[in-house]
Amino acid sequence: MLSEAHIIEYLTANFPDNIGDDAAVINGYAGQQYVVTTDLLVEDIHFRVSYFNPADLAHKALHVNLSDIAAMGARPCFILCGISIPMAQAKYAEDFLFSLATICKKAGVLLIGGDTTKSPDKLFISITAIGTTAPEYIKYRTTAAVGDYICITGALGDAHIGLIACENKRSDLTEFKNAFLRPHAKINEGQWLGTQLSVTSMMDISDGLFIDLRRLCEASNVASNIILENIVPSTSFINACYDLQLDPVTTMLIGGEDYGLLFTVDSENYQLLADAFMQRFGYQITCIGHIVAGNGVHFIEQGQAKNMTLTPFSHFGEE
Amino acid sequence: MLSEAHIIEYLTANFPDNIGDDAAVINGYAGQQYVVTTDLLVEDIHFRVSYFNPADLAHKALHVNLSDIAAMGARPCFILCGISIPMAQAKYAEDFLFSLATICKKAGVLLIGGDTTKSPDKLFISITAIGTTAPEYIKYRTTAAVGDYICITGALGDAHIGLIACENKRSDLTEFKNAFLRPHAKINEGQWLGTQLSVTSMMDISDGLFIDLRRLCEASNVASNIILENIVPSTSFINACYDLQLDPVTTMLIGGEDYGLLFTVDSENYQLLADAFMQRFGYQITCIGHIVAGNGVHFIEQGQAKNMTLTPFSHFGEE
Repeated sequence: MLSEAHIIEYLTANFPDNIGDDAAVINGYAGQQYVVTTDLLVEDIHFRVSYFNPADLAHKALHVNLSDIAAMGARPCFILCGISIPMAQAKYAEDFLFSLATICKKAGVLLIGGDTTKSPDKLFISITAIGTTAPEYIKYRTTAAVGDYICITGALGDAHIGLIACENKRSDLTEFKNAFLRPHAKINEGQWLGTQLSVTSMMDISDGLFIDLRRLCEASNVASNIILENIVPSTSFINACYDLQLDPVTTMLIGGEDYGLLFTVDSENYQLLADAFMQRFGYQITCIGHIVAGNGVHFIEQGQAKNMTLTPFSHFGEE
Repeated sequence: MLSEAHIIEYLTANFPDNIGDDAAVINGYAGQQYVVTTDLLVEDIHFRVSYFNPADLAHKALHVNLSDIAAMGARPCFILCGISIPMAQAKYAEDFLFSLATICKKAGVLLIGGDTTKSPDKLFISITAIGTTAPEYIKYRTTAAVGDYICITGALGDAHIGLIACENKRSDLTEFKNAFLRPHAKINEGQWLGTQLSVTSMMDISDGLFIDLRRLCEASNVASNIILENIVPSTSFINACYDLQLDPVTTMLIGGEDYGLLFTVDSENYQLLADAFMQRFGYQITCIGHIVAGNGVHFIEQGQAKNMTLTPFSHFGEE
């Protein structure tokens, strides 16, 4: 299977300037820049109509894209929506579009265009999102430096538990199912972190911390040490994992679709940033490790290197 | 089935400012504006892998989008490509991306981002294109005025003959099959027409002259009279139509996917524009009628109104 990493590698070789971040950057209006991103949501790869209602799907389709905009430090402005609709799901698609329109309005995002077409059998959704910010506030994943602290906002692994719960038709575990069905892009946090000089790099966590951090390290040509003591599952998370026969720490490291932010902070200014974030957003960022020279993602437990074999999970069996 | 007209109507009601033209307009760089468009190409709806080779498909996917940019009078700059790939077509998809990269380079268009994912069974392509021009050169479909001449560039119906020829596995009719497999967006023509003050409105002909002209009339709140004597099939076109049991004039009026330009010209300046176009591009524009008060698309033959019942064709049975 042609993997996304393979495609990105291929495109980077052919178009060296703009590929690789969560969104592409182009010159914008009045000295600002636009960031542009596109994401596909494919039935039975990214969602199932059996447990995503149209409003859930609209929420997720929008927030998956807004998360890429936020990860660049930008404010989302516009989206375009392409939708390919199987005959049997005309009503579902119409409800999806109604919800999308409503959610866009609430989020202050203008739906400026799209394309609709028939589909042979599966529902396909393509959303392109455009955000804007000042050039100096845009964050990339190529600029993490040795010594920086690695930080995250938001939960790790909740959406993965939600996915397993949905697939297993669990009627409980609502909190986790909601994390999977309706992830909230860290829009305000991303914009604010964009303005902070001490934030040296940023991306969103869409495919799981382990794989996304590995991408950040590759892009910045550095390595990372994750302090496992800093990856602390909550009691409800541990209970849900045992219930579903998942290992809590592994689930936190490889579970995808949480759409938190992963960023690095100049170590000298870390405490200042952490305090300011807490004051502004009312919850803590988590420092999970630090950037070191080398390559790859390494784990530390009680001060010792620990080998972990992690197989990133992506969607319903996608490679 | 949820039709595209229905969706556009719905979106227009909810987002009155930007929906309805070939591309949306947003503020751009250095006093310019960006035009942004997105188009889906779905296997067995818009193409079949049995007779589109990957290079054909890459050409078509790009030009379908560039045609929307050209129709706004803008210069294409950037694209993003989303692709959802069935396991069995990994090699086809890789070849498609290689071709797309090559064609983009040739066209001076930068591929700035994308998304790749697995597909359950069909190949699905989403391209978003971004172009730019000065605000005063952007053409819309809302601004045709009574008395304007209705003009087109390029052939009518060739791509439809090509589609039928491909579907019927014809080994001849190469010229028409190429028109369908590799339409050429009128990129230079669109930009030049954009700069001409006498051009009062413009759009591309993607779904067939009849349906697209009807859209232009609705958007401008006018009607149009098509002079049937001005819709002149070539001898090779007539021969191909008889061979495939198609009516030549009907095929020219309803055949889609030619990706010519449809535009209206202030009648006083028509001859000047037509001469300048001929001088610049080496071929004639065709005046096919004029804008009148009222609504709908009407036909005139030998000076008399003629009733024609036309059923627009779109893709493989799409409504």
